[in-house]
Amino acid sequence: MPAGNEFVDRVVEAQRAKQSLAVLGIDPQLDAPDAPGVPRGYTLARFCCEIVEACAPHVIAVKPQLAFFEARGLDGLRALAEVIAAARRCGLVTIADAKRGDIGSTSAAYAQAFLGGGEFGCDAATVNPYLGSDAIMPFLARVRAGRGLFVLVKTSNPSSGEFQDLEIVGGGKLWERVAGRVNGWGSEFIAAAGLSPIGAVVGATYPDHARRARSLMPRAIILMPGYGAQGASADDAVAGAREDGLGVIVNASRSLMYAYTKETGASPGAAASKAAAAMRRALNDSLRRRTKQSGAVGTG
Amino acid sequence: MPAGNEFVDRVVEAQRAKQSLAVLGIDPQLDAPDAPGVPRGYTLARFCCEIVEACAPHVIAVKPQLAFFEARGLDGLRALAEVIAAARRCGLVTIADAKRGDIGSTSAAYAQAFLGGGEFGCDAATVNPYLGSDAIMPFLARVRAGRGLFVLVKTSNPSSGEFQDLEIVGGGKLWERVAGRVNGWGSEFIAAAGLSPIGAVVGATYPDHARRARSLMPRAIILMPGYGAQGASADDAVAGAREDGLGVIVNASRSLMYAYTKETGASPGAAASKAAAAMRRALNDSLRRRTKQSGAVGTG
Repeated sequence: MPAGNEFVDRVVEAQRAKQSLAVLGIDPQLDAPDAPGVPRGYTLARFCCEIVEACAPHVIAVKPQLAFFEARGLDGLRALAEVIAAARRCGLVTIADAKRGDIGSTSAAYAQAFLGGGEFGCDAATVNPYLGSDAIMPFLARVRAGRGLFVLVKTSNPSSGEFQDLEIVGGGKLWERVAGRVNGWGSEFIAAAGLSPIGAVVGATYPDHARRARSLMPRAIILMPGYGAQGASADDAVAGAREDGLGVIVNASRSLMYAYTKETGASPGAAASKAAAAMRRALNDSLRRRTKQSGAVGTG
Repeated sequence: MPAGNEFVDRVVEAQRAKQSLAVLGIDPQLDAPDAPGVPRGYTLARFCCEIVEACAPHVIAVKPQLAFFEARGLDGLRALAEVIAAARRCGLVTIADAKRGDIGSTSAAYAQAFLGGGEFGCDAATVNPYLGSDAIMPFLARVRAGRGLFVLVKTSNPSSGEFQDLEIVGGGKLWERVAGRVNGWGSEFIAAAGLSPIGAVVGATYPDHARRARSLMPRAIILMPGYGAQGASADDAVAGAREDGLGVIVNASRSLMYAYTKETGASPGAAASKAAAAMRRALNDSLRRRTKQSGAVGTG
């Protein structure tokens, strides 16, 4: 068994120290005339960094969504580098929500981009499984160096079932086959608390899937998007947690970043902080109802 | 029937005018001590732009692989913007090889990034189908505005079969189901020569798949990666072309960009140009052997 994994160690330690499962997604929406993605008077970087700093006491990780930075060209990517640096300064785990995946040599370049030492380097990244194992292998080399991975297994969007739920001859749905492979890829990397750095994205809008995903990937950290704006409840979101409350982290993006639009006079940071604290509490309450054990995470 | 699509028009026109099916992939490999990704004495941008300009007479399109620019951080992305601008100046079609795909609002941001008017905006982009239709829809809005799309259907890497070849209950393999959806998405956008701007990526290392893909997606432009360094022959590469020689475009990256490493004293541009001319000729020869019609593309 290898000597652990820095990413898993940091997630587990942060979850225990902060009594939180919450991940702050940084998805700065595109500007529209009636709904500016960046509040008036802010730059993109200042807006995102204020949210990161304000939420830092309540969340364990920051997950920037690459699309919203790329859509803004070089200026956007400069802001991304600042956001990642700000999250680091706050001691937060960073997850590049990139959903990349390509043939081996190209995946190696993506792994260098998002799990390497450069401006966009994070502690973990999301990846897409459609190309199969050899698209994942270059990322595994980074896992060996302490990084983490979240493979898309069952996503939170309405049409996620179109391919992911197809029934495979011989048994199971496509996403369950992917889950089985994730479990296999992760089996050689078991780290702190028996968890693996090869995690999975499983949409929080599908709590039954979360429980099934847990049984197929007993050691994976499950990253649940979809809390808040995408409609998943706290009970849905913790459905895939282990008995000890570990193994699930829950992302909210718009419901934190844009909390200020629903609260007259609040700054983006102040409103996000309040919303993040409420999210943390709601998740812990759900977890407490679910797990009867004392000493579990849910005491915040 | 809509009034055509600028991307398809330009591809068909370029294919006829240049008598070429060739696409230049810009995949500047990462530097290694024994194999520099960027030749000594060159910047990344100068290297890539020299290749683009030198190959312009022989290829119809340039396909930058995003990973190799992202791996180099902000400097890399500045170079990407220069490469796209250089390809435009040369009158070449641009294809962002991004393989993106995410939930709707995020896909909309990716569509803005790669099919919008910004620094990274191209004429077409590659996308990943794993999330299903609603991840594709925001890209279709750009197709309505004249852009093109290439959906990953059957990729050229060794483990592409791991998920893509799974047999689905009710018939067909996963990639064939994806091909069926691509055909459906494209059916409302038929443009020049009866082709659709919703194309497909089908690995040239699998010529049988190319013929099957053609029958499942009669109107799709098939983008074939894998020619040259990945081992596909010219006969393999044109296997999915229509009778009139249209409907397939063939990418080579490393075999053009790094042709100079195999030819003492040649500049990167001169060696790439020679290799691109040879590729164009080989593809046309294969096409001529395949199609008996005169007046087809293969006369270069």
